[in-house]
Amino acid sequence: MTKERLYLFDTTLRDGAQTSGVDFSVEDKRTISLLLDDLGVDYVEGGYPGANPTDSEFFATPPKLNNARMTAFGMTKRAGRSASNDPGFATILRAQTSAVCLVAKSWDYHVELALGISNDENLDSIRESVEAIIAAGSEAMIDCEHFFDGYKANPEYALACAKTAYDAGARWVVLCDTNGGTMPDEIATIVGEVVKHIPGDHVGIHTHNDTEQAVANTLAAINAGARQIQGTLNGIGERCGNANLVSLIPTLLLKEPFASKYDLGVDREKLKTLTHVSRQLDDLLNAHPNRHAPYVGEAAFAHKGGIHVSAVEKNPDTYEHVVPDLLGNKRRTLVSDQAGKSNILAELKLRGIAVEKDNPFVQRLLDEVKEREASGYAYESAEASFEMLARRTLGMVPDYFDVQSFRVIVERRHNAIGELVTMSESTVKVKVDGQVIMSVGEGNGPVNALDMALRKDLGRYSPYLDDLELVDYKVRILDGGTGAVTRVLIESQDGEGKRWFTVGVSANIVDASFQALTDSIRYKLFRDDAPSPNA
Amino acid sequence: MTKERLYLFDTTLRDGAQTSGVDFSVEDKRTISLLLDDLGVDYVEGGYPGANPTDSEFFATPPKLNNARMTAFGMTKRAGRSASNDPGFATILRAQTSAVCLVAKSWDYHVELALGISNDENLDSIRESVEAIIAAGSEAMIDCEHFFDGYKANPEYALACAKTAYDAGARWVVLCDTNGGTMPDEIATIVGEVVKHIPGDHVGIHTHNDTEQAVANTLAAINAGARQIQGTLNGIGERCGNANLVSLIPTLLLKEPFASKYDLGVDREKLKTLTHVSRQLDDLLNAHPNRHAPYVGEAAFAHKGGIHVSAVEKNPDTYEHVVPDLLGNKRRTLVSDQAGKSNILAELKLRGIAVEKDNPFVQRLLDEVKEREASGYAYESAEASFEMLARRTLGMVPDYFDVQSFRVIVERRHNAIGELVTMSESTVKVKVDGQVIMSVGEGNGPVNALDMALRKDLGRYSPYLDDLELVDYKVRILDGGTGAVTRVLIESQDGEGKRWFTVGVSANIVDASFQALTDSIRYKLFRDDAPSPNA
Repeated sequence: MTKERLYLFDTTLRDGAQTSGVDFSVEDKRTISLLLDDLGVDYVEGGYPGANPTDSEFFATPPKLNNARMTAFGMTKRAGRSASNDPGFATILRAQTSAVCLVAKSWDYHVELALGISNDENLDSIRESVEAIIAAGSEAMIDCEHFFDGYKANPEYALACAKTAYDAGARWVVLCDTNGGTMPDEIATIVGEVVKHIPGDHVGIHTHNDTEQAVANTLAAINAGARQIQGTLNGIGERCGNANLVSLIPTLLLKEPFASKYDLGVDREKLKTLTHVSRQLDDLLNAHPNRHAPYVGEAAFAHKGGIHVSAVEKNPDTYEHVVPDLLGNKRRTLVSDQAGKSNILAELKLRGIAVEKDNPFVQRLLDEVKEREASGYAYESAEASFEMLARRTLGMVPDYFDVQSFRVIVERRHNAIGELVTMSESTVKVKVDGQVIMSVGEGNGPVNALDMALRKDLGRYSPYLDDLELVDYKVRILDGGTGAVTRVLIESQDGEGKRWFTVGVSANIVDASFQALTDSIRYKLFRDDAPSPNA
Repeated sequence: MTKERLYLFDTTLRDGAQTSGVDFSVEDKRTISLLLDDLGVDYVEGGYPGANPTDSEFFATPPKLNNARMTAFGMTKRAGRSASNDPGFATILRAQTSAVCLVAKSWDYHVELALGISNDENLDSIRESVEAIIAAGSEAMIDCEHFFDGYKANPEYALACAKTAYDAGARWVVLCDTNGGTMPDEIATIVGEVVKHIPGDHVGIHTHNDTEQAVANTLAAINAGARQIQGTLNGIGERCGNANLVSLIPTLLLKEPFASKYDLGVDREKLKTLTHVSRQLDDLLNAHPNRHAPYVGEAAFAHKGGIHVSAVEKNPDTYEHVVPDLLGNKRRTLVSDQAGKSNILAELKLRGIAVEKDNPFVQRLLDEVKEREASGYAYESAEASFEMLARRTLGMVPDYFDVQSFRVIVERRHNAIGELVTMSESTVKVKVDGQVIMSVGEGNGPVNALDMALRKDLGRYSPYLDDLELVDYKVRILDGGTGAVTRVLIESQDGEGKRWFTVGVSANIVDASFQALTDSIRYKLFRDDAPSPNA
């Protein structure tokens, strides 16, 4: 059976740029365009030439794409005016992109309310805009705004807008669920009606996630005959976001009925880069990756329950709907009080610690983990602390240093010019290679001061800590049985950007931080093969 | 037309507890149970009695629910054994919950692979388990694990499992898409087949979000006849999460075809608390709320400037699929003064502070709130701090006391018998009624010590603080523009159980805590009509 082609239209740089908190630079836009081109999408909507300085600069020197068509976005021109008499429209054409996508009203209510023109004038505007794009040598697309709401209010008129664009020569007429409130069944019914009048291989779908169904709505439209998909990387976009291409691409390539019916510009080889592509966007946006993202999230193939883990080890397809390698993602087993022996063994194996299944040490470690988790530790979020605990229990890690005492002082008082200021100072007494070293440090707060003092002088271990950096610090107060305890999670990073997490728990926040700090330092020393101490 | 009833089954505390990074305490579980009960869900699945110390303790003294049925989770017992001969099963029954939900295999492949028993033995186990639950006086439910994968492999056997549970008297037979890989159309077809054999009002649906379609799959099952919905708050859950009740509830109550067909235990009044409920779970988990969450996210009804905003102002239904007030959420237009002022006025009115709309104070307070929120304060979660700020700006609250300086010392060292111990001690110098008072206090940690010292002697204000108790303390590290700052949220309670929240922000955690502590004390003094200071 020959497969039909589905076309991917990425609007990360246009609709995605409407996301609150997202602010792309020109350089970001170039990087993302190349990323999308390499992945295999068919259209990269780069922005709205003339709408803001970033987009104008981007289109002035656009990146060279190998596969995808660079697409400029804009609004339909005013009816009856020549392109040169509508400066906004002229700017779009001047970008000379290989494709142009214009948004047009298709809900009669909006034609009157927002544009204040007649229904027929709006149809003229659509026709003339498409003709002008084609005359300028570009491929023309029309985004029919509010198409589904419009169709429910006035089906004849919504359809007339779409049909006018198609008849004028538009390569694609895209049906937009602008407010994101349409249900999959409605999408299926309405797209089914549209493809009676316009061939499906000229019909696109653009959905939003306001009822958490942007992906389902897109797939419903494909099942009903649409052949172009508009969406964004990681589903970013205004309000609740756009259809998430990072979820749609694997479903289309790996799941039935799609996999055997359709081809995409993205193939199985490129699919393996998807996890990486998703993270790269987050890195550019300085955003925390969504651990729970379908297919590409860190937890997407994480198994926590003990029963699950032993079954997954036996046969992955028992608890996984697809194999994580296909996405360039990994299976993870989590260590927690829900864990069984198999979690512990899997985690040890992952960390390069070879132990036999019936070694009594495994049960001892499991008991220790459960007991500690009951008192507030959270090892699944702190794998470096788990590794240190395991290696200590196995006698595989030396006591590099011994902190004999520390003191932290936080003081708030008036300074010499009468301002109220707060200072933090710490002293530590540490024994390294049989020698006692005392250090003092200052910091923004008590934990920072303690960290400063602790790392100031660890004898011959100090050089190993030069590139150790604390990148995040999280505190949670837990209600234990006997009273509140504090759990501190620390994220550390080395000079090569490798990151690890450690945990500490105590009734005293400084003490909990101290545990997590020293675990992080010990982990770094161990990983970098620091020598064992003398004496 | 009389509406049919849909039943909500919340598994936040069971399947949600499988989320990587989620670790509920017993107290968390109690709080969430009461929250769900108040919202109007029908079943609260509290956990798995006997599986871990937290769940065992929770079921030993479960919270009293007014509407919902507390439900214990577990596995079907071994066939042919009496309940007392299967200790795990006996533990579940001993919890004496009003409902019990047992997971049972319904994919023949798993029956052999994971249980190593025959297909018939598995059916016996289902039947005997349901009978044992009913005999123990509880309502019985069976979660058919891997039902959809199982049905695709062996429809007769999957159906036999479900039918056996129903025939044995199970109130609900729940069809689970355990791996989360099933498409909405498949769900619809298979549920449609099942309800030919089991009445739909005994059929439930349990979906996972591995293809980002948990919500769509749930709705497809309802359309096909299922009448019980399993899901979690905010969609937390193993891997990519469970069906998100926070998205499903508004869709079922507000969108067609559901709104006119079905009733829920949650009504329109309770729907208005949904945004708050969603945030409360995040607060408990110390998680960042998802700004882009459908219906309840901070950006779910955010509109960018220009024509868009004026169209929304003219007529909200042009760019909103539902009205945000229905969810207790708010429309946000980009920092429009007018919108901001009306928020402030509404909040002041709520707190009994009468101010005219054009009083210049309102603008000043708005500016102050915006500036402070930009630096990390979160007044939405700290209403008592907002009230103190407003009253200070209005000159409506006296300076009861003035803390001139404080010092906190945390010290870790060996005690007289050689153990490593950590102590915290604090001194404060405070001026009350023109008199300087110095006090010292000890505590579990630096903040506790500071609190002790501060409240030890506040002159004639001390009696007002006898019944003041700190019930919760939360810390979050925020990335500000110039570096990390610490935000502390404190929850306080008086003798009558009234609670309030205060906030403090600083680079120094002790300083931030100090701000939140003193705000709480001042709020208590003001509310209890403490007299103004002399001189």
